[in-house]
Amino acid sequence: MAAEIKHPGQIRKAPENFLDPQLLREIHEQGLDDKRRRFLRQSFLMASAASAVSSTSMSFANEVGTEGGENSAAGDPNILVLPSHSTTLGKPVAQAGYGQPSRHEHTILKRASPGLTRTQEASASFTPLQALFGIITPNGLHFERHHQGWHDIPPETHRLMIHGLVKTAMIFTLDDLMRLPSVSRIHFLECGANTAMEWGHPSVPTVQYTHGMLSCCEFTGVPLSVLLDYCGYDKQRSRFVLAEGADGSSLTRTIPIEHALDDVLVAWGMNGEMLRPENGYPLRLVAPGMQGVSWVKWLRRIEVGDQPWGTKDESIQYIDLMPDGSHRQYTSIQECKSVITSPSGGQQLLNKGMFNITGLAWSGRGKIKKVDVSVDGGRHWRSARLEGPIQNKALTRFNIDWVWDGSEVILQSRAVDETGYVQPSIDQLRKVRGSRSTYHNNAIQSWQINASGEVLNVQAY
Amino acid sequence: MAAEIKHPGQIRKAPENFLDPQLLREIHEQGLDDKRRRFLRQSFLMASAASAVSSTSMSFANEVGTEGGENSAAGDPNILVLPSHSTTLGKPVAQAGYGQPSRHEHTILKRASPGLTRTQEASASFTPLQALFGIITPNGLHFERHHQGWHDIPPETHRLMIHGLVKTAMIFTLDDLMRLPSVSRIHFLECGANTAMEWGHPSVPTVQYTHGMLSCCEFTGVPLSVLLDYCGYDKQRSRFVLAEGADGSSLTRTIPIEHALDDVLVAWGMNGEMLRPENGYPLRLVAPGMQGVSWVKWLRRIEVGDQPWGTKDESIQYIDLMPDGSHRQYTSIQECKSVITSPSGGQQLLNKGMFNITGLAWSGRGKIKKVDVSVDGGRHWRSARLEGPIQNKALTRFNIDWVWDGSEVILQSRAVDETGYVQPSIDQLRKVRGSRSTYHNNAIQSWQINASGEVLNVQAY
Repeated sequence: MAAEIKHPGQIRKAPENFLDPQLLREIHEQGLDDKRRRFLRQSFLMASAASAVSSTSMSFANEVGTEGGENSAAGDPNILVLPSHSTTLGKPVAQAGYGQPSRHEHTILKRASPGLTRTQEASASFTPLQALFGIITPNGLHFERHHQGWHDIPPETHRLMIHGLVKTAMIFTLDDLMRLPSVSRIHFLECGANTAMEWGHPSVPTVQYTHGMLSCCEFTGVPLSVLLDYCGYDKQRSRFVLAEGADGSSLTRTIPIEHALDDVLVAWGMNGEMLRPENGYPLRLVAPGMQGVSWVKWLRRIEVGDQPWGTKDESIQYIDLMPDGSHRQYTSIQECKSVITSPSGGQQLLNKGMFNITGLAWSGRGKIKKVDVSVDGGRHWRSARLEGPIQNKALTRFNIDWVWDGSEVILQSRAVDETGYVQPSIDQLRKVRGSRSTYHNNAIQSWQINASGEVLNVQAY
Repeated sequence: MAAEIKHPGQIRKAPENFLDPQLLREIHEQGLDDKRRRFLRQSFLMASAASAVSSTSMSFANEVGTEGGENSAAGDPNILVLPSHSTTLGKPVAQAGYGQPSRHEHTILKRASPGLTRTQEASASFTPLQALFGIITPNGLHFERHHQGWHDIPPETHRLMIHGLVKTAMIFTLDDLMRLPSVSRIHFLECGANTAMEWGHPSVPTVQYTHGMLSCCEFTGVPLSVLLDYCGYDKQRSRFVLAEGADGSSLTRTIPIEHALDDVLVAWGMNGEMLRPENGYPLRLVAPGMQGVSWVKWLRRIEVGDQPWGTKDESIQYIDLMPDGSHRQYTSIQECKSVITSPSGGQQLLNKGMFNITGLAWSGRGKIKKVDVSVDGGRHWRSARLEGPIQNKALTRFNIDWVWDGSEVILQSRAVDETGYVQPSIDQLRKVRGSRSTYHNNAIQSWQINASGEVLNVQAY
């Protein structure tokens, strides 16, 4: 397949692997030859598909003058009718407001899985990755995971205490913290239980449920190292810190001091604004690369100590049961992982021809170095184009062009991080970890596209 | 002032200019000596300030055991009462939802200026920069500027036509475009009229109104160069493209072909999700570095031509009236600029001692190289710490620590971009441009802090 740029002088500064214009034209013509099928972004046009669009004969773009020109979807393609938004006065600017998504996007929501837990206060909701672009997760669609429900804490009453092996135990208000030198960094956040259901037979249909406990935001806060220095932590004896949340579950996590002094933040900002209540407003820990549970929400207390605490949240929960019956504990780092978000499970290809395969890659150990994509279940791999700048412990968006010939295929992506670690297959993972784990499934995800264009969640070896 | 790190081994990977722990401690003690004043983030705690907080004696953090410990704001500081969110079940995860900001953030809104225009359909609203962190502008707070109001266009009926000096005129559906190779990039977007009111005597109190027609988002779309190649644009004769919106104003802008082929995108994605209706849903032009009006919203048509069109939106509007009576036309590039967002006009310092001065810098010509900050009206300058990665034609967040001694001061920031261009003073700008301009005011902004801690919008020379 011709994937290189034949006219670099024309597509200036274009990233690698762009399709060349001639190939685009061939695909376009191929599309015009087959008007029966059309790519539907299920989650994007679900509502409209049933009505206006499905009866039209659109395929891959139309030359002006051919069947299906502008406004054809609104009725007779030969009559050009100006839509009302081109002939009427629109809505005024907001006098004072907070904007919302288009009403046409009403199906793009974070969603819970009702049978997942016994109560919805100790449960999770999932981010609709299949409908998202780039690397930033909008705050309104950030996944949730609570141990005793969420609260909207009045910020003026909230306090952070730092104590333990420190010279001076201190209590900070939010205003105190905001006066300190802050930093802003983009990081991914993944629940340790993300992709848990894929340890067994694939049972959930979409990437929202297989990988949707994943997000990436720009966080703003003060480095924990600054606060520990401020309180005068004991440099000889300090080996761990304990972070505790202010919700009823008093969620607590032990973090090694070397992580705490590295890139951990005490954060209030998320994608430019204050944290959302579901995500820890007004203060949470940001523990880059570590599993979500360590990013303690509604953060109220940090204790410095010389040994791990072994609290309920790290001895009974968030442990990996190994084949020999032992448990892996404190398995905090999220290993290198990737997933194709479109086409993905539950979507439908309605037209052979060209597609942009796109997805996300990330590693708790640093930057993503490479993402390879296979369309034949792992026999052949091509390197995808990575969107830059590639950032440390952040999502990286990948894109690669692909021409679907209408046959059954299996799509996979495989990420490599800067340490050289290669994302494993589910088979490789099971050989080491067995099949009784809940957490830390970073296996290669397989999506099968059958001849009718349906995309299904499968496991391929 | 000691701005270097004295213990680099402790604050590992910390950016430059962090205050050292000893200085932090001295400031802390200074704060404890003066409990009368306290820094208030006006826009953040406005509501609460009047009630719970102002009567407490908090200053800069508290040692455990001193007056004003945890929960002191809730009543008697000697009685520790667990707040209800620590003792009750919280709210459940969203079954299917789109999250919203905390109710405590209800004052953080985009806001219009009622007297600005005769109708609110042809007007603007402003982003609350004083309350934002990092560089990402949340979609709900993105400024608005409409010429005939906004619409929520059904995406399945929307089309983009490309015609003019092309081999094959084409019409694209949104689905067609989404099948093409897409890219995701973070760019700033600034209205050409941003800071317009500062050409005269300062008349607006806050940075929301002086600089709030400014945002920065991650945009996803297909490079216009790919589409132009696809349609076979005439490489000999093409010199300009015209972009046209689908709203009633039929807003049109001429863009030189070298820009169109460089980094201009036809975009649908904004901060991970679909564009908001107010920002051009479902399709807009992204013209990095160019003034906002060129980022045509509700994009429906691109024409390729051999001369500029001189439409109403570029001959009657968006022109700069020069001292000699002539007009500058097609002044599209937003020159290098910066502004301190906190402390900024309308905020109040209630306590001398340490503050993190923070703000934004940007340039339509590339990356930001340096931002200097003055606290004495421009006599002395110190270089601020820039948050990385510094991106091309994107906002760059700067931070610098500062100890306020309680005297009257004037804060200013001055940015330099990678071309070496230095942000001018308002005086320098007026010498060249006169005082009859509306657009393209990129002068240094001055905030005066008086002895009572009030922050005011002033002009300093």
